Amino acid sequence: MMENVTVMREQAMQWIKEASAYIHDSFQSALTIDTKSNASDLVTNIDQEVEKLFINRIRVAYPEHAIVGEEGFGDEIERTDGYVWVIDPIDGTMNFIHQQRNFAISLALYIDGKGVFGIVYDVAANDMYYAISGEGAYMNGTKIARVEEGYLEQAVVSVNATWLTENRRLDHEKIAQLVRRARGTRSYGCAALEMMYVVTGKLDAYMTPRLAPWDFAAGAIMANEVGVIATTLKGEPLSILHKSGLLIARRGVHEDMLTNYIVCKE
Amino acid sequence: MMENVTVMREQAMQWIKEASAYIHDSFQSALTIDTKSNASDLVTNIDQEVEKLFINRIRVAYPEHAIVGEEGFGDEIERTDGYVWVIDPIDGTMNFIHQQRNFAISLALYIDGKGVFGIVYDVAANDMYYAISGEGAYMNGTKIARVEEGYLEQAVVSVNATWLTENRRLDHEKIAQLVRRARGTRSYGCAALEMMYVVTGKLDAYMTPRLAPWDFAAGAIMANEVGVIATTLKGEPLSILHKSGLLIARRGVHEDMLTNYIVCKE
Repeated sequence: MMENVTVMREQAMQWIKEASAYIHDSFQSALTIDTKSNASDLVTNIDQEVEKLFINRIRVAYPEHAIVGEEGFGDEIERTDGYVWVIDPIDGTMNFIHQQRNFAISLALYIDGKGVFGIVYDVAANDMYYAISGEGAYMNGTKIARVEEGYLEQAVVSVNATWLTENRRLDHEKIAQLVRRARGTRSYGCAALEMMYVVTGKLDAYMTPRLAPWDFAAGAIMANEVGVIATTLKGEPLSILHKSGLLIARRGVHEDMLTNYIVCKE
Repeated sequence: MMENVTVMREQAMQWIKEASAYIHDSFQSALTIDTKSNASDLVTNIDQEVEKLFINRIRVAYPEHAIVGEEGFGDEIERTDGYVWVIDPIDGTMNFIHQQRNFAISLALYIDGKGVFGIVYDVAANDMYYAISGEGAYMNGTKIARVEEGYLEQAVVSVNATWLTENRRLDHEKIAQLVRRARGTRSYGCAALEMMYVVTGKLDAYMTPRLAPWDFAAGAIMANEVGVIATTLKGEPLSILHKSGLLIARRGVHEDMLTNYIVCKE
């Protein structure tokens, strides 16, 4: 069983390298940009073609596995039984379009609802992060150190400015209090990478009220391997069946934010 | 005269490479971290030693020139006459400490108050940006294209979450309106780099109410070479004699933000 997982993780990395080459080629040609749920929810032809690439590779290698992907070319699942691949072909599409950097491929394998391995690849920076459950997390081949407990006063917290404006998901006045108490705030616009920054200690926390399983499926496995806590904004476990908010943070900071600053309206 | 400037710009780049090697070495040893004006205003021994390195090199090569630096080892100037070097040894010290990336060296030469050349070096990414006034701006040796006019609805704006909380410098309610109208917002915590992202089209605007000349001296020269507008938050020209706010944006976005969203309290 564990040998199998290592082989599958190496295969998945090969597919990611293939997808990355395709994305780099796309920088030379014009993108087709559409919007999804709203004017800021962007999708390009590259997002869609990269998802199809992954689905084709997985279907050939593992025809009996389920696949959940952002662009909807995979399966709709209602149960977590068996092998489920969870894919975001390009997380941070706005950055992909505007910056050609700060976006990532996120890919995870779950078996019976439990994370087996997760990979996040920062395409422009060529930073490869991965973890196999129980075997630790790695960045570019180097084992990532366990993340220690911390305190909000010394924390750099990633939170988008949107959540400091009046909105239907969070009490924005409490987020303003959080911002005043933290050492500093940042926002990068790519959930998978912001999770990796917490996992590698570059950020102390990242929170956002609306994500889908493909955004956090790989990151949650990484977090678990280094002692970082990743939950919904209500402190519940994340599920690959449901969209939810995300709070990922080092111990101490996670508890403080959850208890004192995050008040969900829904 | 112009030959001289090219020689000086090449010399300055050599000093930057030397400083960069010193900073990379520092990643292996413990930092001495102090605070300056408040608990979030950090400085390390490396900031100070890198500034001294630049000052030593400039004093030997150009003993008659004035030097203005963040850490205060240079001169205090009250007039802009003659040759003035403006240096930030590490812009983004909090990122330097927490992330070992997303910080920059910023160095500029002004003659009689006019920008002659500016260099911004992203140490961790090894991205070198420079401009000589009237000769264009370059990133890693490639000429940066002129930045076209744009619209706020399609703009990615960098603004720190702090300015969406009640503060003594800006009407934060207006900034909330700005955030809702822009396509997206980001925050990177390094003014010199955020200016470079606007100059290279990765961001459409960056605003902040409190900077010093060493933060923007090089970036302002870069901006001017690609048609990006850089002013104070009141729309006035930037000066190397004064601390001020900064609004740097592509045409159209700059005017819209200045007219409709930025209301200074002081």
